[in-house]
Amino acid sequence: MTKNRLSSSDYIQGILQGDRVILSRAITLVESALLSDQLIAEKVMEGVLPYSGKSIRIGITGVPGVGKSTFIESFGKMLVESGHNVAVLAVDPSSQQSHGSILGDKTRMESLAVDKRAYIRPSPAGNTLGGVSARTREGMLLCEAAGFDVILIETVGVGQSEITVKGMVDFFLLLMLAGAGDELQGIKKGIIEICDAMVINKADGANLESAKIAKREYANALHLFPSKENSWNPQVKICSALENSGLKEIWEMVKEYQERMIINGYWDQNRSNQRVNWLHEHVRYLLEKSFFQNEKIKNQLDQILPEITSGRLSPIAKARELVDLFTGKSKGDK
Amino acid sequence: MTKNRLSSSDYIQGILQGDRVILSRAITLVESALLSDQLIAEKVMEGVLPYSGKSIRIGITGVPGVGKSTFIESFGKMLVESGHNVAVLAVDPSSQQSHGSILGDKTRMESLAVDKRAYIRPSPAGNTLGGVSARTREGMLLCEAAGFDVILIETVGVGQSEITVKGMVDFFLLLMLAGAGDELQGIKKGIIEICDAMVINKADGANLESAKIAKREYANALHLFPSKENSWNPQVKICSALENSGLKEIWEMVKEYQERMIINGYWDQNRSNQRVNWLHEHVRYLLEKSFFQNEKIKNQLDQILPEITSGRLSPIAKARELVDLFTGKSKGDK
Repeated sequence: MTKNRLSSSDYIQGILQGDRVILSRAITLVESALLSDQLIAEKVMEGVLPYSGKSIRIGITGVPGVGKSTFIESFGKMLVESGHNVAVLAVDPSSQQSHGSILGDKTRMESLAVDKRAYIRPSPAGNTLGGVSARTREGMLLCEAAGFDVILIETVGVGQSEITVKGMVDFFLLLMLAGAGDELQGIKKGIIEICDAMVINKADGANLESAKIAKREYANALHLFPSKENSWNPQVKICSALENSGLKEIWEMVKEYQERMIINGYWDQNRSNQRVNWLHEHVRYLLEKSFFQNEKIKNQLDQILPEITSGRLSPIAKARELVDLFTGKSKGDK
Repeated sequence: MTKNRLSSSDYIQGILQGDRVILSRAITLVESALLSDQLIAEKVMEGVLPYSGKSIRIGITGVPGVGKSTFIESFGKMLVESGHNVAVLAVDPSSQQSHGSILGDKTRMESLAVDKRAYIRPSPAGNTLGGVSARTREGMLLCEAAGFDVILIETVGVGQSEITVKGMVDFFLLLMLAGAGDELQGIKKGIIEICDAMVINKADGANLESAKIAKREYANALHLFPSKENSWNPQVKICSALENSGLKEIWEMVKEYQERMIINGYWDQNRSNQRVNWLHEHVRYLLEKSFFQNEKIKNQLDQILPEITSGRLSPIAKARELVDLFTGKSKGDK
């Protein structure tokens, strides 16, 4: 980033012209931990913001082995071939340890990766989900400003990351396999509750019949969940990413969802809520960061830590003292 | 609390004498949202801290229907009858909505509730897990200072609360039923990974045989998990809370765990780590609270919120401005 540094207006101009190289550099800038990069990144974000938001954002989850990469590749190919520009992003807080467990290896989506109408970006590294998700959101807005009208956000089917992705997309899709019980797929009830559709993948060859049976069973099971405030009943679809079957039906379902949500007002309401939550999340993230990087706090922590670990000092009382020190409040203040 | 207000030293003295009424009032004080109460509560905590920490802290989880209350009642009775003083607390972030879904109704543990050697306290109300857990931790220390040498912390078998409870106990016990598959019990793999023992409850009558089979199966399954840093292999036990069978074996297992962990140093190391995490958690909680209660921030938020929800302003840039405003940093600062 230091060599050949671009100004914020260079970035903005390049992105709005759909320049891939500059888009990639802007995402790298957004992901940078350097404060100087972040300040430019914020200006870039402000500049592109009016041009963002015009895509359909789809979250895709499912446990390892369910065929997420193959599904995204086939689904993405179908979309670009019908005239869309598709960006694929990922939220994977484990990617730092595993060096990009999802989307890290673009060769898994070879034919989509080389398509000019598609753009694939692996998960930003990071050890907190908050940091990873903030960066992915910004990457999403940058891609939108660069002209991508469908954003696919992949995440792993375990942990908190689905909730995070649900909080940044319009439509949330859960990939499943027929035959394997829920317990084998490691799918938690909580994920089923937040999905807008379940898609049974690998419905081909000998699996086709069991996929159809599973579809009926899941559809029945979904009826047991309380209906959602947006009055959308989650759908169950089957598809084969290998045979390219069922993909158009999934896209039509997403389009139908969009139409209905725009009419009943939920589309905008959901995005408004997401923006407020995003502000709150980022506030929490920055507060914590600026606290633990504060020199006075670091010194104080070094001093008291042995007495905290030994149990001689109360963490509760010390937390308040530290926070008061940080916010410049004296002990006597109310 | 306003009438007949006690000083912090009244509280401390009462607690150290094992006065139940004062212990209950101190816990209420700790749970109070009023800053004036919290400041007294912190003094009380500081005063009792040197007398706390001498108990065995056991976390107990399991989905609704597994028989947690009956188990805790029988296990607690067995403990008091063998000379222990037992306090039962709960962590249930849903209790505000559901008006105390666990431990709210002491009549579920009628015979333990009336026993002078036991003390039962429902989950503090609260809409954030952070707030609920901080208050439960403090309640735990107060109970220890009041002379309780076994603390049982109950939590619901769904969501994040197990991780929270795991972070405040020495031993974590997962209650299960035989026959029901994992999927029916809603148990997530993550919970199985963090437990120190699985106990198959209701192993009586016609269930006894299936409980024995389930014990073998779970024991085999647990072998598949990587071994823990403390070199403890999680045990599987069966018990009947109704018939009072298997309870002594569970207690002996906990005692064996304690002995081995004290010898290998993990007991103290775990508690040290918990105290540091507790400090960090409480810092996060207080930072966020003091931020969103700050008058300048509230005014600013009111002003910008319409432009955030509409997408005209960037949540990321505004979050930084708000945090800078809060920490008193001007825009030009590093």
